[in-house]
Amino acid sequence: MKVTLADVAAAAGVSVPTVSKVVHGRADVAPETRSRVEALLAEYNYATPRRASRPGLIDLVFTGELNPWAVEIISGAEKAAFAGGHRVAVSVLAGETSADEWLARLSASRADGVILVLTELSPAHRRQLAALRVPVVIVDPVGQPDPRIPSVGAANWAGGLMATEHLIELGHRRIGTITGRPALLCSQARVDGYRAALEHADLPIDPALVCTGDFHFEAALAAAHDMLSLADPPTAIFAGNDIEAMGVYEAARLHKLRIPDDLSVVGFDDLPMSAWVSPPLTTVAQPLAQMAAMATRMVLVAPADATGNRMELATSLVIRSSTAAPPAQKRIGAR
Amino acid sequence: MKVTLADVAAAAGVSVPTVSKVVHGRADVAPETRSRVEALLAEYNYATPRRASRPGLIDLVFTGELNPWAVEIISGAEKAAFAGGHRVAVSVLAGETSADEWLARLSASRADGVILVLTELSPAHRRQLAALRVPVVIVDPVGQPDPRIPSVGAANWAGGLMATEHLIELGHRRIGTITGRPALLCSQARVDGYRAALEHADLPIDPALVCTGDFHFEAALAAAHDMLSLADPPTAIFAGNDIEAMGVYEAARLHKLRIPDDLSVVGFDDLPMSAWVSPPLTTVAQPLAQMAAMATRMVLVAPADATGNRMELATSLVIRSSTAAPPAQKRIGAR
Repeated sequence: MKVTLADVAAAAGVSVPTVSKVVHGRADVAPETRSRVEALLAEYNYATPRRASRPGLIDLVFTGELNPWAVEIISGAEKAAFAGGHRVAVSVLAGETSADEWLARLSASRADGVILVLTELSPAHRRQLAALRVPVVIVDPVGQPDPRIPSVGAANWAGGLMATEHLIELGHRRIGTITGRPALLCSQARVDGYRAALEHADLPIDPALVCTGDFHFEAALAAAHDMLSLADPPTAIFAGNDIEAMGVYEAARLHKLRIPDDLSVVGFDDLPMSAWVSPPLTTVAQPLAQMAAMATRMVLVAPADATGNRMELATSLVIRSSTAAPPAQKRIGAR
Repeated sequence: MKVTLADVAAAAGVSVPTVSKVVHGRADVAPETRSRVEALLAEYNYATPRRASRPGLIDLVFTGELNPWAVEIISGAEKAAFAGGHRVAVSVLAGETSADEWLARLSASRADGVILVLTELSPAHRRQLAALRVPVVIVDPVGQPDPRIPSVGAANWAGGLMATEHLIELGHRRIGTITGRPALLCSQARVDGYRAALEHADLPIDPALVCTGDFHFEAALAAAHDMLSLADPPTAIFAGNDIEAMGVYEAARLHKLRIPDDLSVVGFDDLPMSAWVSPPLTTVAQPLAQMAAMATRMVLVAPADATGNRMELATSLVIRSSTAAPPAQKRIGAR
């Protein structure tokens, strides 16, 4: 049974001309009305014609605060969009209200595609976004991604494995880790890679050496302080990201431990900053700019084909000066 | 004598309907033709009607690579734009060609305002931009800003003065500095602040202690290495920005000098990273997000009134753990 504009108008409690305006993308409709009508059109599977004029814009959406990590993403997306004749608009959502406003604005002014970066939308917001029929790609899914939405991530598990294997090869046996935000898929994968490396080397997993972090400096400093205060402290720490690694550096300084002589540290991300800190940080490189470029091309070029794709780009270990053999090993070597 | 469309068409070597299309902002005109016609319209002072529909977009333009500094600017602009119901598009120009493409795109799809961040346009590009009649504000002018274009900067001279006075107050007498890119107004102002502080304290300015940098890590590392290799090395270094300060940290580590015990370091910018490095960096805070927010409000709210305004927002010294009394002073104190 075919749904008519009149059916949608009745369900939405608005006039038929209003529904028609929404269908044809006219601007003179109140945002709330537009959202309601669009949701119903999507629910009834009413085929809205694609806009003829494309705004030439990709909406790159972050949640919370922009951090040094975000700059790599913006940079990669901007380059790919520019090459495709598009511009990148950056939106930063902070809470439910701003997601409402962002969706209202997107609905009124449109975009050719939306890239959600580590952004979790509520089910209601997800429905509203789907109703807009704009191609969406997720970068770094927060949880298990919706199988209908393509996503781009990094090989986080392999990165955690590599980082920990590097420390094991240097001779470390007491290796601690500080996780990222536990609810995030990428954090879980990194810790699982750490565990897998220890298991593979027949090393025990000491729960006292697996500390919960949140990707920020303060919690990592506290966690590293706790681990370094243990009777049997770790000789190496794998941090959930480069910013957490900075917390470990500071804890080491406060404990009068030299890096890498007394304590080895590995980060994750390979932010530009990791080459500037002292000593330069050994870290797992995540191809953030490439991930963003890939997502940009996915929303621009082949949104239909990309549906349900889950891309995972390779990570690699960048060895700098923050990792070395553990002190005990060195003492044995010096004998 | 009033200029007609026919005059402009004749001068541009195109038809009258083409000029009319440009005047009315129609999309179906080749970018080169549009630029040529717009330049002539501006030259003849032909009053182009402002577009009725505002795209709700501010174009935030950087040159070169996005760095951690840029994220603060994007963040501030995004918040201010969002509050005003606008989106922020980020453009990164790398060379003349990309400036051409950017202007062509801006001409075709428009923006409600343009914010140029540390971006130097060629005179030809400046004329093209002026012809588009989009409000423009400059953040951190590269050179002496065009008096007709409003700009927002920070109190760089006062920042350089504060940083150096802080070191003098701690008892330092041999204070080195590493400049930013010498061609930039902000770099010049910071070094002049440094000189003024030394002069005010009746301390000599030793040319060997004033090293040229470029705001990047490598050159600062080399400059700091040179200064620390002098027969009479400095006991403190004021770096042109936080990234340069990281170069000084690394040079100190390689010279086996502890910060702040053997060497004091002050940065500039107060990037989030400066609170995470070890030891946490004393630095001059530049209100980057506020500068960007101010520029955003200036392009959105009162472009006409703002013409020629030059705003300078205050800087402030953030004292962390990288500055202390010089070693000689300590030895005297310990006697």
